[in-house]
Amino acid sequence: MSRWEPDARERFVAAALELFTDQGYDDTTVAQIAERAGLTKSTFFRHFSDKREVLAAGQETLSRLFAEGISSAPADASPLAAVAAGLANAASAMTPFNRELAPRLEAVIATSSELQERAALKQVGMALAMADALRSRGVTDQVASTAAELGVLAFKGAFAEWIADGPDGTADLAALLRDALDRLRSAVAQLG
Amino acid sequence: MSRWEPDARERFVAAALELFTDQGYDDTTVAQIAERAGLTKSTFFRHFSDKREVLAAGQETLSRLFAEGISSAPADASPLAAVAAGLANAASAMTPFNRELAPRLEAVIATSSELQERAALKQVGMALAMADALRSRGVTDQVASTAAELGVLAFKGAFAEWIADGPDGTADLAALLRDALDRLRSAVAQLG
Repeated sequence: MSRWEPDARERFVAAALELFTDQGYDDTTVAQIAERAGLTKSTFFRHFSDKREVLAAGQETLSRLFAEGISSAPADASPLAAVAAGLANAASAMTPFNRELAPRLEAVIATSSELQERAALKQVGMALAMADALRSRGVTDQVASTAAELGVLAFKGAFAEWIADGPDGTADLAALLRDALDRLRSAVAQLG
Repeated sequence: MSRWEPDARERFVAAALELFTDQGYDDTTVAQIAERAGLTKSTFFRHFSDKREVLAAGQETLSRLFAEGISSAPADASPLAAVAAGLANAASAMTPFNRELAPRLEAVIATSSELQERAALKQVGMALAMADALRSRGVTDQVASTAAELGVLAFKGAFAEWIADGPDGTADLAALLRDALDRLRSAVAQLG
């Protein structure tokens, strides 16, 4: 086993998704995932605590990217402009790999209430991560929470559009995110 | 066993929370919950599908109350006014029982990642229930989703304040909810 494993994480995710899809999530073991990926179990456990984490890893990465983007926004950026920076940072890290795997990931999650619950917790975690990053900029609680929820809504909507465009589509995630956030900004004005 | 079990549900919830707190969630069986409640297992299963459902039952009830309140709001109510009606409907159904049990419920959920994940899914479900009810009134997707997220934020904030006021407190949940939603309405104006 070479120590050089630049794409070990992606290989595990791809292998796990194949197996979950083919034989079901419950019947798939970490040993099988490692074998399919052509890597060892110990390498698996350097990247993930268990097979469930393979599916949640993307959401944790997203939370980190959102928070980093928000923290790096110009000091005078408004709360929603900072959220836009967080979304842009996440978009810049998304690859064709993410786009290709996302529909299969969603299909696997849809087969298990346990996985749906985990995904929901991670979704709540994304909003908390954005709100925390905003509060660190001095944004008040209520404004931070509201801006974070809009950020998650924008991401979910734009990501779904990106995936729906298909693997050969030309849709630009960053542009979709900007549009989604703009639509939510307009929606806010209609709340009454 | 009398067929007249007006408070069977509450008795199961109270008994389950006692046992979960005393001996842990994992080590508590449905048989023990039924015995502690002075009811039968078959009665338990008429109310809940498993012991996890005991803890999630409140959130499902809330989702229904939110949706009913939103549906019953005047036809000319704005999206956020309809959400306010949903929150008011939920507040009117909350009793000293809910107030007394909520902190213990939260403490039990905090002990288990499985329970936290379930709670997160129900929280996401609350927002979806509100958004669905708003869409049924003709509110557009984006506005419905945004108003629903504000509704969940308002509820979480106000409910926490209500609980924090203590079992002998005089705080009025309906008033706390109106204030929380007003604060969020102000926060929206500061999003930038």
